[in-house]
Amino acid sequence: MGDLLVIGSVALDSVETPFGKVREVLGGSATYFSYAASFFTQVRLVATVGEDFPEPHRRLLADRGVDTRGLRASQGKTFRWAGEYGFDLNEARTLDTQLNVLADFRPDLGEDLRRTPFLFLANIDPELQLDVLRQMKERPRLVALDTMNFWIRGKQAALRRALAEVDVVTINDAEARQLAGEPNLIRAARAIGAMGPRVVVVKRGEYGALMLADGAFFFVPAYPLESVYDPTGAGDTFAGGFMGHLAAQERVDAAAMRRAVVYGSVMASFTVEDFSLRRLTRLKPGDIADRYASFHDLIRLEA
Amino acid sequence: MGDLLVIGSVALDSVETPFGKVREVLGGSATYFSYAASFFTQVRLVATVGEDFPEPHRRLLADRGVDTRGLRASQGKTFRWAGEYGFDLNEARTLDTQLNVLADFRPDLGEDLRRTPFLFLANIDPELQLDVLRQMKERPRLVALDTMNFWIRGKQAALRRALAEVDVVTINDAEARQLAGEPNLIRAARAIGAMGPRVVVVKRGEYGALMLADGAFFFVPAYPLESVYDPTGAGDTFAGGFMGHLAAQERVDAAAMRRAVVYGSVMASFTVEDFSLRRLTRLKPGDIADRYASFHDLIRLEA
Repeated sequence: MGDLLVIGSVALDSVETPFGKVREVLGGSATYFSYAASFFTQVRLVATVGEDFPEPHRRLLADRGVDTRGLRASQGKTFRWAGEYGFDLNEARTLDTQLNVLADFRPDLGEDLRRTPFLFLANIDPELQLDVLRQMKERPRLVALDTMNFWIRGKQAALRRALAEVDVVTINDAEARQLAGEPNLIRAARAIGAMGPRVVVVKRGEYGALMLADGAFFFVPAYPLESVYDPTGAGDTFAGGFMGHLAAQERVDAAAMRRAVVYGSVMASFTVEDFSLRRLTRLKPGDIADRYASFHDLIRLEA
Repeated sequence: MGDLLVIGSVALDSVETPFGKVREVLGGSATYFSYAASFFTQVRLVATVGEDFPEPHRRLLADRGVDTRGLRASQGKTFRWAGEYGFDLNEARTLDTQLNVLADFRPDLGEDLRRTPFLFLANIDPELQLDVLRQMKERPRLVALDTMNFWIRGKQAALRRALAEVDVVTINDAEARQLAGEPNLIRAARAIGAMGPRVVVVKRGEYGALMLADGAFFFVPAYPLESVYDPTGAGDTFAGGFMGHLAAQERVDAAAMRRAVVYGSVMASFTVEDFSLRRLTRLKPGDIADRYASFHDLIRLEA
């Protein structure tokens, strides 16, 4: 089992969907990622919060075995995001973003974190992603990166420098098209692969995910849910299941990558069933394995 | 090998996409279906055309072994459809529809056709679909039906009567939601299954297809094409591969249905690579088997 380091955001989210509304609940890319990955391997979280960050939130992560020593409280307020979704749950409309302590976040990895074998650079300023990569004493066995439209528009040069150095990128479909400047998603995935990453994972919301790994495509559908309450965090949870599986197995070959995409899809399918991390906190032993088996049945050609 | 009877439209299509434009080329639901299914089994086509229908079009079908004795020429002009697609190739905009001889089409199955074991009711007035079902002397081993928004809006009562009597329905995703009155596609598929068909196949364009068969879902992605020229006929070609495989194997169990969905996806993936039936007419021996193997690789969990 390999340790898994994640750097990203920890947030207080306010979200409204057609199915309900929550205010200042636990969110953030590194939070969803850590919690999901904690079911697979030892996770070490590096992020910043403000003095107002509720202690129960930190405890929630610690109780799952997440190493939160790198979750530093700084003077000021915790990063806040507010958004809403319409009946088409595929895209969030951001209502408000308050960076707060995230604006001055300069991650400083302690000596013991600089040799972690699996690294996930969750959605955050690509300059910070590069900075963390530079701090590693040894090239990790596998580095993955997630990003979003905000950085593709605003910091594409830094993002491209980061992409050139990672093994895996996870990105949603609209952002993949935007980054590649190419409407055909298959060509877009290939173009992004040509920017550096050996593995490109495109998240497609209700249409599942596709992976281009070493030139070969692999497709997984979304789990056929009759009720989706809140897609917030689905992509980060996906990445948590994906990287968590690879780190746990200490494998990075194509077959492991395929299983990892399914584990990512499994974790994302739970996340969207309730607000914040609620559904994940209710997971019972066997739930993940059961849903993995269900996913296998969804794509198994020999019924 | 079981014979396969299809009733539907034969048309002259005028189509414009961002990648080109064709005028009065061979089209129609029964045409695409027959041509695709002819690679698998003996197809018998029942449809009507006008006196203006070009002889080379009939010959194209006959040369593939399609039994065109039921393709009757009536006084008047052949059915014409004109449509265009934007860069989002998922939905056609109909520019013009001239029913012509299709307006008075009353299919009369000869005695030898009334005992065909596999029957496909291609997209056409549901009253005609019901009429053909009534003419069968024996209940076919498998009956499938395709429909579209025009009939869901205009003839839903007749359509529901037809649905209650068929084994399989093929329908696209927007139309499935419309027919079920349900935005969640998974619930919509279940609701349509409750209307009668044991098997519901939902075609999702660039997102592939899903099948609900005997309560279990199966998903197939679209083939990862870098260039899609014209989606016209993709759904009918899908149905041709699907029903062609089942008729050829004389099997209607769940495992055969899954393979059939893949064969349908294979045939549709060829159709969209050029206008009209052009790509299908260029198929070489082995092309179908090769692409089937590629599809298998796209969803194979053990890489």
